[in-house]
Formats: sequence, structure tokens, C-alpha cells
Amino acid sequence: MKKQFISTLCLSISLLLFTQCEKPSEKNTNTPTTVAGTPQHSPENFAIVIHGGAGTITKSNMTDERRKAYQEKLQEALDTGYAILARGGNSLEAVQKTINIMEDSPLFNAGKGAVLNSLGKNELDASIMDGKTLNTGAVAGVSGIRNPINAARLVMDSTKHVMLGGKGAEDFARLHGLTFEDASYFITEDRMRQLKRAQDKEKGIETHSVSLNDRLDEGKFGTVGAVAIDKNGTIAAGTSTGGMTNKKYGRIGDTPIIGAGTYANNLTCGISCTGTGEYFIRTLAAHEASNLIQYKKLPLKDALDNVIKQIGDLGGSGGMIGLDKEANIAWSFNTEGMYRGFKKSDHTQSIEFYND
Amino acid sequence: MKKQFISTLCLSISLLLFTQCEKPSEKNTNTPTTVAGTPQHSPENFAIVIHGGAGTITKSNMTDERRKAYQEKLQEALDTGYAILARGGNSLEAVQKTINIMEDSPLFNAGKGAVLNSLGKNELDASIMDGKTLNTGAVAGVSGIRNPINAARLVMDSTKHVMLGGKGAEDFARLHGLTFEDASYFITEDRMRQLKRAQDKEKGIETHSVSLNDRLDEGKFGTVGAVAIDKNGTIAAGTSTGGMTNKKYGRIGDTPIIGAGTYANNLTCGISCTGTGEYFIRTLAAHEASNLIQYKKLPLKDALDNVIKQIGDLGGSGGMIGLDKEANIAWSFNTEGMYRGFKKSDHTQSIEFYND
Repeated sequence: MKKQFISTLCLSISLLLFTQCEKPSEKNTNTPTTVAGTPQHSPENFAIVIHGGAGTITKSNMTDERRKAYQEKLQEALDTGYAILARGGNSLEAVQKTINIMEDSPLFNAGKGAVLNSLGKNELDASIMDGKTLNTGAVAGVSGIRNPINAARLVMDSTKHVMLGGKGAEDFARLHGLTFEDASYFITEDRMRQLKRAQDKEKGIETHSVSLNDRLDEGKFGTVGAVAIDKNGTIAAGTSTGGMTNKKYGRIGDTPIIGAGTYANNLTCGISCTGTGEYFIRTLAAHEASNLIQYKKLPLKDALDNVIKQIGDLGGSGGMIGLDKEANIAWSFNTEGMYRGFKKSDHTQSIEFYND
Repeated sequence: MKKQFISTLCLSISLLLFTQCEKPSEKNTNTPTTVAGTPQHSPENFAIVIHGGAGTITKSNMTDERRKAYQEKLQEALDTGYAILARGGNSLEAVQKTINIMEDSPLFNAGKGAVLNSLGKNELDASIMDGKTLNTGAVAGVSGIRNPINAARLVMDSTKHVMLGGKGAEDFARLHGLTFEDASYFITEDRMRQLKRAQDKEKGIETHSVSLNDRLDEGKFGTVGAVAIDKNGTIAAGTSTGGMTNKKYGRIGDTPIIGAGTYANNLTCGISCTGTGEYFIRTLAAHEASNLIQYKKLPLKDALDNVIKQIGDLGGSGGMIGLDKEANIAWSFNTEGMYRGFKKSDHTQSIEFYND
């Protein structure tokens, strides 16, 4: 009896909170909203949302050529994942293959073109999570693996472990036949210049003649991530990154940390983050968003905004993308921009760069 | 007006839930309870709670001699932390120094006497968190550092990072003058036999003549951890471990993962975990408990029980210790035993091994 009363009260509060939190859509139909739709997942209701990093480029530095390059690559990534979902494939595969497209492109800070550590090497992190089983896999600080997200998937599928690090993780990936590449495959001239400038700055040397291209992505974050829900209602999320330019001492950021940079749970949502990873770890950003949905009954968008505010209050910056169990999509960021896009089975889609 | 109404409703629900969830204490005054005391932290209300691992020894294998050794070492650890708190020291220092006592003892799977990986080496993990600032530090897969929890503290205090891994973390610790020891300092005969048996078993070789001592701790987890609240009401939590015997490929468990094995937040509680780390990562055990307190208004004990049930449902085992902002202490585990103890400024204390 008491339980029934509590349930009724809880329901009332949830409804009230929901009513209060829900904001009218200020955008066209292509804009992600958090208006909860059908309470049950519809079999044809699938979607994918991606990001290519937050704060990587300022509006004033964007050229038409560069915009076109990002637009095309993000579209290719979205189309890849969407096609898998449309033919009834699972969300894990969609997330993985979508991230592969961005890992293979030098435009982003993941796989080819990832930033360099203080020794001029790539140290890559990635993680992936299955929202149905809560299975997950991650690799931290690996070099040479062409697609770190595939290594994360392999950890999830082929071990009883969640996270493998450094040389051990590389040995494991090699044993299982993952593709390796020489250092030269990963390293781009842009990233070498970026490292040199970071190291010069550390020594007190200021570089005056910096070209537009040189300034791009400087000290910023181009982590990539994807979240998808498939026709069966299973949510998956994944994230892949090269971390921070000039990073030292085996620094590990939020990307390979389940609950920080990546989280998926069919009960709530899937999340992928990008930004100053330390703040996303301290706030357990992805898990926090999921719990705000599960325990505080916040809509997805409000949950993401709440977490980004927590991160901002601590002094951090970055962004998050998410997708809930009704295939609603939302994102939130406190940087000038975040490369992002979504594509849904209701034929809405969008690719956006800035807060407009 | 609507907000006020919601607040009143929320308060009612919280009170109702609290009334419903609170259980009468079934134990004597030395037993940790979750009965919330003063709503404000009293300046003299300080406490420390520790664990030395869950499931490390079965009741049938416990000897008087062994019991005495653990009892004495746990008491020494508790007394060390308590003395720091009693003289007005901060909870971070209490946690760190308490863990040092257990790291320096070969009785536990941390520091000296930590389990060996598949190469016969120690790979140690540790993390620490400050509940006031949400600052945190962690090291993963380090060798040679005498007290990994000190390295975690150093990461927190001396870098803008949260987590350093492998050789990079060792270089960082060496640069800052932390004490290093040769491999021989860490490795005990018990651990070498344990590794051999694990490797024999992997090859299908069953060892028949196993002594009592040999069986102890086999395949089990002796992670150590501490949570404290100081006179200022600041909560800190820390955990240190050698991970799993015969671990391979740079496996990282929950201990260095903030929100999984360790979490502290002055708004809610401090938590340290031990067990099959992968399940504590997948459930974000420590952060989940904190959120159940913050968002579901569960008392500490119910929050821990809820998380241990989630872990059990996934197939995992282990335990958690916690302490909330009113200095209430609780623990929960689904193993036969967990080495644990607490000491409070109200002169209650206890050291317990099993579920009795």
C-alpha cells in the first residue's frame, strides 16, 4: 500500500519534472530533441549520432574547404553506421564501423592523424560498450593498432577483461590478427608542427608566424565517438582518441574509462564524450548522465546539459552526444563548436559544427 | 510555486523512502549502521573504514595464527588513520597512510606481497579521491613503486592529470622522488606458488598436494582500501591492489578507475571496492552507490546492497566499504568474507572477517 503510494508520488514528480524540464523545440525538424516519444521502442526506430571532437576549430578559422572536408567525412561516417542499422545490423557494429571511418581520416584526433605525445609517438585510447549486456572493452595507451576501437571490441568479445593497457594490449591485438601500421601511417605534418609548438611553448618559445592551418586543432580535442540504437532497441556507444598533444608519463584520459568518456545502457541511453578528459573522469560524465535519466527522470537533453554544467563548474570544457532508448538524440557542449551529426530512421538528419 | 510544490513532494518521498529503507540495527553498538544522524556534520564526528579484500580466505581455512596476524595489521592500519583524524589531520592523509600500512604488509594483495602477473612481475594499480574538490589521482600497471597510493596522490597533487599508466607513471614517480624497491622486495614465496598453480591449471595440470597456506588467497582478491571523513567533514577514499594472479596483456581492473573502485564526494559518501574488478567497472560501482544516495535518497547501506546486487546479477563477486557525510559507516559483500574494520570518534570500532 505504502509502495503504491510512493509509486504514485514518484510518477507525479516524474511527470511534473518532465513537464518542467521539457523545452519547446527551437529548431527545425532536423534538430535533435528530447521529447520522449513512444514509451516502447518501435522496431523501425533506429538512429545514430556521432561527434568528431569539441572545440577543435574556432568559427573565425573555418574555411569553406575545411568545412567541406569535415562535412563529407562526417556524412560518410553517418551513412556507414546508418546503412548497417537499416539492414538490421546491430548497434555495436554500426558504432564500430562508423568510428573506423573517422579513425582512418587524418581530420580527427584518432587513429591516423592522432596527436603526438611528448616523445613524438601516438598513444591511442578507445572503448566500446553494449547497452544490452553492459559488456564493455577498452584499450589505453596503445601504439601501432590501426583501429583502436576494434581492439576495444576484441577485448569485450574475446576476454573476461574490460581494459587492457600499453604493450600488453598491443600483444593481445597482434595475437588476434588486428591490423598494425608503422608510425609513419599515423603521423601527419600538422601533428608534428603542433607538437613542436606545444614543446616550444613549454620552453617559453613563442612562435609568431603561425599559419591558419597550423593554428587549427592546436591544444584542442578531436576525439571521435558514435552512439547507435538498432532495430532491436539495443544501444551501443564507442569513443576513440589520441588524447592530448605533448602528453607525458602515460597520461590516460576519459576515452577508455567506462562511465567517463563512454557509456551505454538500454534502460537509459548511450553517451560518448570529448573534451578535457580529466573533468569527464572526475564527474563520471557518461554514467552521471545515464543516472540522471534513470534516477532523476530527466530527459536526455537536460541530463547532458546538467553534466556539462558540472564539468564547466569544475573548470573543464568539452561536449557530449547521446541517444536514449526511444531513439531521441541530444548533445551538449560548452566549447565554441563540436563536430557532430545524426541520422534517424524517421528520415531526419543533420551535421552541425557550431552552436547555431 | 511549482518548484516549491515539487520540493515538498520530493522531501515527502525522500522521507517516506528513508523510513521504508531504514532497517533496525540487528547488531551491537560496534556494528556499522546507516541510521542517519545529525543532518549537519559535527566537527568532532570523524571516522575511518578500511578493507583488506573480499573472498580472500574461506572460514574453513582460517587458523588462529592467521586470524591474529590480520586482526593486528588491520588494527594498526585503523589506528594510524584514526590518529591522523583525531589530531585534526585531513582525510586524504589518513586514507593514504592507512593504505601504506597495508601496502607494506605481505598479508594483502597490494604493494609488498601483491600477486604476480603472467610474467612473474608485479603490476600495481591505485587511486585516491578528495570528496571536497573531486580531485583525484590514479596509477595503473606500475612496477617498482613501493607505495602505489602515494603515486596516485602525487598525480592528484602535482599534475593536471587524473591517471598515469605503465612506464610513464613510473618515470613520473621517480622524477618526484618516490621510493622504489627491487622486484625481490615485492615478491613472496606464497605469490610465486600461487602463480605457478594458476599457470599449471591453465595448462591442465592439477596440483594435488597443496598445503593450507598454499590454498589461501588462491585466485582471490586482497585489494586494500580506506575511506575517511575528517573533522572538517571532508571525505576521502583510496584503493590499492596488485590485481589478478597470472593477469595478462596489461589488464587493468577497477582499482585505478575513478567511479568504479574508488569514489568520494562530500555531498554523498566515500567508497572503496574489492572483487572481480570487471564487474565493478561495468556497474561503475562506487559512483553508482553515490548516485543512489544523491538522486534516489537511499541510505548508505541500502545503496551498497543495491550495487552489490547489481554486481551479483551480472555474475560478479566482491565487496564495498563506505562512509557517508554524517560519518555513518556501512559495507556490503557477496563473498564468504571481507577483511574490514572501522573506528569512529564516538568510540565505536570493529574488525570483522566474515558475515557474522
